[in-house]
Amino acid sequence: MRALCLEGSTPTVRERAEPRATAGRAILRMRLAGVCNTDLEIARGYMGFQGVLGHEGVGEVIEGPAEWLGKRAASEINFGCGGCPSCEQGLERHCPQREVMGILDADGTFAEYVSVPITNLHAIPDSLDDERATFVEPLAAAFEVIEQLGDVSGQTAAVLGDGKLGLLVAQVLDLCGARVLAVGRHRAHLEILSRRGIQTCEADAFRPADSPGRDIVVEATGSANALSGAIAATRPRGKLVLKTTVADPLTIDLAPIVVNEIQVVGSRCGPFAPAIEALATDQIDVTSLIAGTFSLSTATDALAQAARRGVGKVLIDCASD
Amino acid sequence: MRALCLEGSTPTVRERAEPRATAGRAILRMRLAGVCNTDLEIARGYMGFQGVLGHEGVGEVIEGPAEWLGKRAASEINFGCGGCPSCEQGLERHCPQREVMGILDADGTFAEYVSVPITNLHAIPDSLDDERATFVEPLAAAFEVIEQLGDVSGQTAAVLGDGKLGLLVAQVLDLCGARVLAVGRHRAHLEILSRRGIQTCEADAFRPADSPGRDIVVEATGSANALSGAIAATRPRGKLVLKTTVADPLTIDLAPIVVNEIQVVGSRCGPFAPAIEALATDQIDVTSLIAGTFSLSTATDALAQAARRGVGKVLIDCASD
Repeated sequence: MRALCLEGSTPTVRERAEPRATAGRAILRMRLAGVCNTDLEIARGYMGFQGVLGHEGVGEVIEGPAEWLGKRAASEINFGCGGCPSCEQGLERHCPQREVMGILDADGTFAEYVSVPITNLHAIPDSLDDERATFVEPLAAAFEVIEQLGDVSGQTAAVLGDGKLGLLVAQVLDLCGARVLAVGRHRAHLEILSRRGIQTCEADAFRPADSPGRDIVVEATGSANALSGAIAATRPRGKLVLKTTVADPLTIDLAPIVVNEIQVVGSRCGPFAPAIEALATDQIDVTSLIAGTFSLSTATDALAQAARRGVGKVLIDCASD
Repeated sequence: MRALCLEGSTPTVRERAEPRATAGRAILRMRLAGVCNTDLEIARGYMGFQGVLGHEGVGEVIEGPAEWLGKRAASEINFGCGGCPSCEQGLERHCPQREVMGILDADGTFAEYVSVPITNLHAIPDSLDDERATFVEPLAAAFEVIEQLGDVSGQTAAVLGDGKLGLLVAQVLDLCGARVLAVGRHRAHLEILSRRGIQTCEADAFRPADSPGRDIVVEATGSANALSGAIAATRPRGKLVLKTTVADPLTIDLAPIVVNEIQVVGSRCGPFAPAIEALATDQIDVTSLIAGTFSLSTATDALAQAARRGVGKVLIDCASD
């Protein structure tokens, strides 16, 4: 099969053996996949990953239990061992022996086929087309903020960063009743939110320390340098959610976190069910985020396009040449 | 009156005008005060404070409402404005206009007399002698961990640092039912905890990453360098409480916080009531922490002694020459 592989230090589209279904596994024939900033970090060597890249996407089950065959599905990306205390508590996403699709020891979605645990499959309803279904995984990561913070209705929230994840987090917080201010650098991105009635502000005009601080601040800029401003934008006893995974250490003054008793919440992958529900009922605009679709043969171009500043979600059509 | 003042960059015992009681204020004739590491930081220039140092201690109310006169009391250290949204929510400790005794714009306890808001007073019961009463403020800071984390019973906790605050936090967590491991560098300090049945471990023998990680980790080493180890000692989705206020920026890799979805909780001042209750009922050993008592005239020697490595709580007898 064709796949975008990281072997050595360069991502390359190449032929690769098709995965075979083993016990507890299903094979997805990939239809459409999405490029995430994490893929770009992985391609640059983060996590030391080698194999097929990609962790977002939708495919059709072609091998696996009869009840799944022919169905479209998205797969959760963390493959837990199933037997450890984390997995027994339903925290497969934190299983210490986990594999993570396209990130850690498991081949990913930028391929014609991918093998995933059956227990990781989520059915995609007919009302959800492939394009929107590719957003299930990143939207789940946005819903993780709600899973961690609980009821946010009526709370003031600032979302820093209008990249793909920032736009999803802002919409999810808005959907859940928070009073959201989205701060970003790309007018076209902010307008996606303005159209939905979400207040926006250009980053250069945002003065985090001018206000009493927000109840909730989400740092989703993708840049380590934004953290000090994010701390300053959080009210005393407020919650600062870190969505940016930065591979490099950064230098930071942590005293304001202690003095203001801020709660810093690291946030990663999230629950698929509310993401699928919100997409299927058209409560989140993801279509406006799509910046283009590339064939699997030109997947390296897809990565290059996704790496350009201010570009939205780049998709890879895994079924086309 | 005599007071240990920071004027310019050197703490000096000098004569100073006695405070006068104004509306809403009481005057405490100080009996005994305690030296905290924060005092040492303040004396080195942290916060840019100028005035009478000190924020821990017990005194006798000599001016103020009739019902308080002659009573022994300890004062909460944050003086809120009383009229802002923070104060109205009972969060005077986070009032943006607050003064903080001996730390920010308000004279402190290393003096013969100190002026404090009446609303900040807490009566010291007869069962609590002056020495133990000086621990009300730092023990309240330890109870803040419980106020922030809620029920900790049955949870695994590691307290990093066996300085004064670490020893109090370890005892409070133990009192509240957590399964505590205290990690430190001073055998004599750790023995205070061992005697109470708390498990201890010398810092050099502690391998944070060897275990699956604790539910709760409290960073109370006073050293910024300990933070990476504290992150590594926290289980995925666990809580890391930061008690160390470090004035200098530090360089840190925050990716594990995001990947493991750790909740980092800044923690500062705490509630006096449970601290007084626990001391009055002898549930926390503070007497073993006392390293010596200095007269107010020799208060600079008290600071010097407190700054020595491995020294416990140094007290200042404010009533003696």
